[in-house]
Amino acid sequence: MDPRLHFVTLATRDLDGARRFYSDGFGWEPQLDVPDEIIFYPVGPGLLLGLFEADKFAQDAAGAQPAEPGGVTLSYNVPSEVEVQPLVDRLVAAGGLVVKPVQASAFGGIVHAMVRDPNGVVWEIGYNPLWSVRADGSVELMPPS
Amino acid sequence: MDPRLHFVTLATRDLDGARRFYSDGFGWEPQLDVPDEIIFYPVGPGLLLGLFEADKFAQDAAGAQPAEPGGVTLSYNVPSEVEVQPLVDRLVAAGGLVVKPVQASAFGGIVHAMVRDPNGVVWEIGYNPLWSVRADGSVELMPPS
Repeated sequence: MDPRLHFVTLATRDLDGARRFYSDGFGWEPQLDVPDEIIFYPVGPGLLLGLFEADKFAQDAAGAQPAEPGGVTLSYNVPSEVEVQPLVDRLVAAGGLVVKPVQASAFGGIVHAMVRDPNGVVWEIGYNPLWSVRADGSVELMPPS
Repeated sequence: MDPRLHFVTLATRDLDGARRFYSDGFGWEPQLDVPDEIIFYPVGPGLLLGLFEADKFAQDAAGAQPAEPGGVTLSYNVPSEVEVQPLVDRLVAAGGLVVKPVQASAFGGIVHAMVRDPNGVVWEIGYNPLWSVRADGSVELMPPS
């Protein structure tokens, strides 16, 4: 099995709040927006983020899932330390809530913040000098020496 | 902001159970495995899946997160309908629990199952004839006509 992730789908009570957070905060463009049902954003090669209306999500998951996301963090890395706070500010202006203000993380050199989207999805916004993407798409993780 | 997702990080109470599920069930190889802390699997270009020990996860998220993943589904698409059940069987043999047996989904032509990993992460294993990845990495979603 090719190691791949094709969709990340999140229970979303407030689709309008989600649209505002992702389209206005991150500045992303939906690939597909089905009112009262689901919004898809492209978030990488072969990868879609789906914000799925919470009741329909629960029904599709055969009731095996709570109605609010938790126990998961999605990370977005910015290219420099000074870009963390401005993105956090834009996300807050678009309905996000800071759950961890910008700070040095416990791991070497990382500066990050955590922002909760209007539906409970926690995003880590970070500058991570140990992380880079090679030309072939593989991720380089350089542990602190 | 480039629309990207760089890490998906999941609260993981049982790292050994997770390793078994992903390495033996999906057959993936960890990129980094730090005992009692975190296991990273590459799951796409520029994308890592992190299974982060639950207490450390909660601490890193500043207590803003429950200790078990929920309200999120991760999807893995297989190339043909007949490959869904065998993958589900391998995941179950590696500690997964079927929360939705293989069946036609509510959406046109999709055949899928949902399998909970040993730490509460729900995976959708699906054959989706409406979904494909173009040469440039963008996802084609063909709505039913």
